[in-house]
Amino acid sequence: MTEARVGYFVCSMPHNLQTSVALLARTPAALNALLRDLPEEWTHRNEGDKTWSPFDTVGHLVYCERADWMPRAKMILEFGETRAFDPFDREGFAHERQDVPIGERLDDFGRLRDANLDELRAMKLQPSDLEKRGRHPALGVVTLSGLLATWAAHDLTHLHQISRVMAYQYREAVGPWSKFLGVLQCTGHSS
Amino acid sequence: MTEARVGYFVCSMPHNLQTSVALLARTPAALNALLRDLPEEWTHRNEGDKTWSPFDTVGHLVYCERADWMPRAKMILEFGETRAFDPFDREGFAHERQDVPIGERLDDFGRLRDANLDELRAMKLQPSDLEKRGRHPALGVVTLSGLLATWAAHDLTHLHQISRVMAYQYREAVGPWSKFLGVLQCTGHSS
Repeated sequence: MTEARVGYFVCSMPHNLQTSVALLARTPAALNALLRDLPEEWTHRNEGDKTWSPFDTVGHLVYCERADWMPRAKMILEFGETRAFDPFDREGFAHERQDVPIGERLDDFGRLRDANLDELRAMKLQPSDLEKRGRHPALGVVTLSGLLATWAAHDLTHLHQISRVMAYQYREAVGPWSKFLGVLQCTGHSS
Repeated sequence: MTEARVGYFVCSMPHNLQTSVALLARTPAALNALLRDLPEEWTHRNEGDKTWSPFDTVGHLVYCERADWMPRAKMILEFGETRAFDPFDREGFAHERQDVPIGERLDDFGRLRDANLDELRAMKLQPSDLEKRGRHPALGVVTLSGLLATWAAHDLTHLHQISRVMAYQYREAVGPWSKFLGVLQCTGHSS
């Protein structure tokens, strides 16, 4: 497997803005279809102390739409490497209202994402813009292209997390099948 | 984290048929929202030799609706432990048509899932039915409850896989952010 992956490495997809936007535009609807009106046994349970439920994760996605991606994209275009991004609080969603149904968070996510993608399209970014550099407070020099690709991959990391956290609730209910279910072997990989 | 998980273990969700059905009913729409009309760079690339693309995975989910879950549920009710299930071919989808758009597989998945859930509801299973036992060719004695919980968790294992395979395509495009993206540290955990 490792060898095959290495062999495939040369075919890694270059970043294409339209490809990223195609995914970014779909994530809110996918989470909406999965989570809206689902019993809270699925949406509000986590993997134990200080871990996130799907409800928390949707809150984090909402907060990222407000505070992470587009503000940082605009900082790269305005300040380049001369000014580091403000540090981002992964737990910032804790300040958002907790006593709302998940549907309200899903609505917020969809609305904010649509507005951000409208703003992104209006920038009419050119390939030369995508090469522009900014400064991440922990990672150092980054590019606008990397930021926008990360925005898309970040949706996938949280879809991956949500599916894992939900499956975790059934780790006993599945009985002996647990060893055949890869998701139940996943330990999260969070840094 | 391990300790927290152990502490939480006592709260593991018991299997509830309505809870499983709520999820099973939503997965086709979630995959449809995520994958339909998405560029093939996302849907048709895999993680290297002999691994599955999202297109392959949807084919596997279609094949499971035909050949795995409901046929096995009916075998438990009809034969109990006296007859083992037919072995299931995880790669059985290879015999399905390959030259179709992913939308056609998503349509098949939605249609077959709806029909299977209609049939399941018509069985009006009682708690005593869920305790009934069958025989898995590799796992030995299993219950109908475990089979139906596994049907739901199996959706989640493949949502987990699809998000990982898609993120893998951007493993270079994200640049230094890769170390913050848990999904890019995931090695799959397949048995």
